[in-house]
Amino acid sequence: MTYCVGLMLNRGLVFMSDTRTNSGIDNISTFRKMFVWEQKGERNITLMTAGNLATTQSVVSLLDERSKEPAQRNPGILEAKSMFQVATLVGNTLKEVIATHAETGQRADAAFNATMILGGQVAGGAPRLFMIYPEGNFIEASFDTPYFQIGETKYGRPILVRAYDPEMSYEDAIKLLLLSFDSTIKANLSVSLPLDVHVYEADSLEPGQQFRIQPDDPYFERISSGWGIALREAFGQLPDFTFPEGAE
Amino acid sequence: MTYCVGLMLNRGLVFMSDTRTNSGIDNISTFRKMFVWEQKGERNITLMTAGNLATTQSVVSLLDERSKEPAQRNPGILEAKSMFQVATLVGNTLKEVIATHAETGQRADAAFNATMILGGQVAGGAPRLFMIYPEGNFIEASFDTPYFQIGETKYGRPILVRAYDPEMSYEDAIKLLLLSFDSTIKANLSVSLPLDVHVYEADSLEPGQQFRIQPDDPYFERISSGWGIALREAFGQLPDFTFPEGAE
Repeated sequence: MTYCVGLMLNRGLVFMSDTRTNSGIDNISTFRKMFVWEQKGERNITLMTAGNLATTQSVVSLLDERSKEPAQRNPGILEAKSMFQVATLVGNTLKEVIATHAETGQRADAAFNATMILGGQVAGGAPRLFMIYPEGNFIEASFDTPYFQIGETKYGRPILVRAYDPEMSYEDAIKLLLLSFDSTIKANLSVSLPLDVHVYEADSLEPGQQFRIQPDDPYFERISSGWGIALREAFGQLPDFTFPEGAE
Repeated sequence: MTYCVGLMLNRGLVFMSDTRTNSGIDNISTFRKMFVWEQKGERNITLMTAGNLATTQSVVSLLDERSKEPAQRNPGILEAKSMFQVATLVGNTLKEVIATHAETGQRADAAFNATMILGGQVAGGAPRLFMIYPEGNFIEASFDTPYFQIGETKYGRPILVRAYDPEMSYEDAIKLLLLSFDSTIKANLSVSLPLDVHVYEADSLEPGQQFRIQPDDPYFERISSGWGIALREAFGQLPDFTFPEGAE
């Protein structure tokens, strides 16, 4: 399993992904699921992946190769003229890879599937955030739905729904994402630290801030334990329930 | 979909279930998913159901018929000598009903499946709480895992994990369950009010408190809106994130 979130803030984009992959619970590995392509002054693109690891690695390799040999297939991820074109390229590559695996005569079904979050900015356009489906089509984040989750999305969703604010600072956004990841990690063994983070400042077209939060990160530990206490305090502040009159 | 939770507290058992059933999102109905069998001084049994409505209604009807005609099949739900026997009876009935539907030649798969939470007390034994699977087998709640959820379980789980306390009052338990249901209802259209509640006092062997929380319940509305504010305050109290030095 996997958990990745892409947040669109007014000031920029914040991405966070876990790194655990598993094929059965006795076969657990750490793989990066966040990939960044940057060209200073020109573009900054982040891709996060959930699903079949062979599929997602193949997609990223193809995107990388295409970006390195522009003559081979145009436009590559570094040549596409807009984020919409980048999303189309990634969607088509994903669809092709899944189809190639399926054509071997193996049962395709969901087994080779993958879902991706793509975000970033190409010079001349605004920052944009997309969710790309195995079929190669995609949807874009909007004012009403300003973030996307992929993988094990449910445990970490309630806190996002409640505390997300498009005006929030990068620091608050990362704190919020860490809480969302903490809820998920506590509930699903197949999501785990280290966590990769990328923060891209809107309209900067500069390389963003990238770093990794390690399993023993003291801030994460403070957030994780502090949140339990804070939640119980918040719980205590809510008005008390009283039994309805006439309850049997 | 459905959401039901059974909590085991030191003082007793608390059950909550939603009432929404759907067959596609354009075919939504309200059905009770909580069923209580009581015999004063002798037993108090609660069953909550998730899954195929035809299956769960059939199971409950069969249990009811068996409870009314003890000669037909012994022991019925009102005759079984222990909660373990009750769980076995319910599990076997569930398995039989699923098998009957599957034998018609239709594809069985998950389509006829159902999962159930069973809890209560039979005179001479302690209060017990079980989760019953479509295969007819079941697991029992313990000190380590003192509650069960069925249906759409993930959205409402983090708050249970964080705030459950076996010593809590019934009022606090209902408040906690309402928060768990609120998170689920906010995220999944197929879970909705009204909510059925049953509170059984351990060792009382008296009829428990049963009531329904309606869609316009003012306390639920206060909890739902108050929790958003309380969560954001709790969020603000946590230590701030600072970017690591050396982040690119």
